[in-house]
Amino acid sequence: MERIRARYRIETPYPLDEAAAAIAGEQSSGTFVDVPAETESLQERHGATVEEITELETVEEPTLPGARTPAEIDDSDGYRRAEVVVSYPGENVGTSLPNLVTTVGGNLFELRHFSGLRLFDIDVPAALADAYPGPQFGIEGTREIVDVYDRPLIGTIIKPSVGLSPAETGELVGELLEADLDFIKDDELIASPPYSPVKDRVTAVMGAIDSYRDETGNEVMYACNITGDVDEMLERHDAVVNAGGNCVMVSMNSVGLSALTELRKHADVPIHAHRNGWGALSRCPELGYEYQAYHQFFRLAGADQMHVNGIRNKFCESDESVIKSAKAVQTPIASDDDVAMPVFSSGQWADQAADTHEALGNVDLLYLAGGGILGHPDGPAAGVDHLKQGWEAAMKGIPLDEHAKDHQELRVALDHYERR
Amino acid sequence: MERIRARYRIETPYPLDEAAAAIAGEQSSGTFVDVPAETESLQERHGATVEEITELETVEEPTLPGARTPAEIDDSDGYRRAEVVVSYPGENVGTSLPNLVTTVGGNLFELRHFSGLRLFDIDVPAALADAYPGPQFGIEGTREIVDVYDRPLIGTIIKPSVGLSPAETGELVGELLEADLDFIKDDELIASPPYSPVKDRVTAVMGAIDSYRDETGNEVMYACNITGDVDEMLERHDAVVNAGGNCVMVSMNSVGLSALTELRKHADVPIHAHRNGWGALSRCPELGYEYQAYHQFFRLAGADQMHVNGIRNKFCESDESVIKSAKAVQTPIASDDDVAMPVFSSGQWADQAADTHEALGNVDLLYLAGGGILGHPDGPAAGVDHLKQGWEAAMKGIPLDEHAKDHQELRVALDHYERR
Repeated sequence: MERIRARYRIETPYPLDEAAAAIAGEQSSGTFVDVPAETESLQERHGATVEEITELETVEEPTLPGARTPAEIDDSDGYRRAEVVVSYPGENVGTSLPNLVTTVGGNLFELRHFSGLRLFDIDVPAALADAYPGPQFGIEGTREIVDVYDRPLIGTIIKPSVGLSPAETGELVGELLEADLDFIKDDELIASPPYSPVKDRVTAVMGAIDSYRDETGNEVMYACNITGDVDEMLERHDAVVNAGGNCVMVSMNSVGLSALTELRKHADVPIHAHRNGWGALSRCPELGYEYQAYHQFFRLAGADQMHVNGIRNKFCESDESVIKSAKAVQTPIASDDDVAMPVFSSGQWADQAADTHEALGNVDLLYLAGGGILGHPDGPAAGVDHLKQGWEAAMKGIPLDEHAKDHQELRVALDHYERR
Repeated sequence: MERIRARYRIETPYPLDEAAAAIAGEQSSGTFVDVPAETESLQERHGATVEEITELETVEEPTLPGARTPAEIDDSDGYRRAEVVVSYPGENVGTSLPNLVTTVGGNLFELRHFSGLRLFDIDVPAALADAYPGPQFGIEGTREIVDVYDRPLIGTIIKPSVGLSPAETGELVGELLEADLDFIKDDELIASPPYSPVKDRVTAVMGAIDSYRDETGNEVMYACNITGDVDEMLERHDAVVNAGGNCVMVSMNSVGLSALTELRKHADVPIHAHRNGWGALSRCPELGYEYQAYHQFFRLAGADQMHVNGIRNKFCESDESVIKSAKAVQTPIASDDDVAMPVFSSGQWADQAADTHEALGNVDLLYLAGGGILGHPDGPAAGVDHLKQGWEAAMKGIPLDEHAKDHQELRVALDHYERR
């Protein structure tokens, strides 16, 4: 089996080779005194190896507390940052995603060797990737369901996030459908609470979608939030499918990796992976994970559509990071079939279309807008139209203001929303 | 249903009431423009409420990037820290642990309102807690299995972490058993890799434990690491039980919450919850979670034994934080039955016994030592003896050096290991 390669950014008061060796040691055979059973041949077969060290800047103050100080270390001139590649024998992990997580991350984040440690990227061995089904639908399968090609799928989130009854939700979706959307999703804050059980909600929503399809021939994807315990998710998945539904949504960090793996085994429809909770794992730049690394666990487990935030979003993430994530989601891990569809959202309207298109280089994405659709002065249909016009302009390389000259909905949007 | 109360520490350039309101808004109905369907009565029924704000210090530099700057905010004099309590209507979540996670955490960590946001504590409504089974064995059930009372359980980790075959593992365990341990666990880096499948390893290890029991009448708990996909874990659990095993170990952050919930439904033996990966969620003091809050999700799901690190550990965590975590694990959530047994480890030997005992106020814990047992100059049996002697001294309030006068193994340990 191939080796697992993991790329970290570290910050450490130790000489870099010593710090990198601490990663390799901790994740193959660390303890605080030498123990007899650790023989050399075992080390050779199962030991982790430092492959590359690239020194970066040195900083005076540690980013994270709890690390040793430079004063405690010989020859230390501060906290050095570096990129480090460590490889692990594939057979230490076998073909197991959760055990991959433990090996490339695990206890490393707590080592006193480091005042910063962040997992930037992983090369997952093909044998491990192949042991998991990956996305069942991905970009192509998602497009096929709604029969939309050559532009991003345009979608919205059912708001208010919480409180609508199934009947009210169905009614609201009925109104939204008039706007000619491709995709509608639940908010992550509503799964199957007592006031809106999945079964009732999906029945009401699919009733509205069925009527709309009968009238127009158009298919709309509804990502129904089935987040819950494993048996609940499987049952809710079946309720979705039985109601004619075509997508399930899961808060991937809340249910966790192995629950998503289990859902995928059972799933007949795409899995829309919401990443709420991601900030806790990523917002400190010298701790946790880059999405490029982290999302791979859930993609291999079977996520078809994966949230990546959006350009000029209302959250804290930089545009550079958003695009890096979206590109990663579209990049094969072990085969061309394992790519997923990035989901852009948060403060999105026509404003960000051109920059998103240029940075990503394609239109294989889901573009979600809340206020960008519902808040359009001329109503949701105009909201959706302005988004399609914005993307048309982006794809044709026409400046927004110029395109707005003969596109009313776009023009109204440009006057209404704040450009950022 | 009762309201869910969540206590956060925040850091924000905004006036504190505005910042706290942003938490409540985001986690019940946030979007970047007003939307029509959000009526007042719905807000009343489903809205989150700011319950308390306690101002703390103001800092000049933001801990986390991506927040708005004080210059962008009227009347801001820097980044203010505060403790904030927000309550959420219980019916927004229903009786669902993963949806509790999304509601009290979720997108909050990414808001630009904050240069720091950490979840400190949660009051889980009784109805939600009662919907989950919680620990099946906990402190009492764990003690009953090994028939040890009135002192901590003494355990060790099988090392080297990776590379031993099942036969080699069984042999090593056979040797360790001579030391008169209560508990032996796998390292988190070995689950069921090709060179040591759970079924073979547990058979070999339980063979050794069976022989030992036949000879001595003593029971030893073996936490076999079954971390994997859900179906793998259930199958491995059965293999453990069929081999006469009495504990399964899971890397809880790697498999995730709903997988642990599913395992608990199926489990006939205690679940030993390893928390590797925890550092990524906790090491930045102004981001992520306190264990006091976070561990509750997994405890309610069914973890019986939960890692809390140890006093003067080799990792970055402070003693204060370790003890706070351990106390939290022992504190009832909804009933006295839902407490779990804290697992102390990392660099532990007799040195930390007295301080651990004094700070925790009881001996209901698992005390794991690797080098503290295997590295004892007179061998593992002396290693275990010195730990028991150390805890005896702690419980009787006798200084270590004094107790060592007539306890050979403790005396040798005091000469050998480095006091910290």
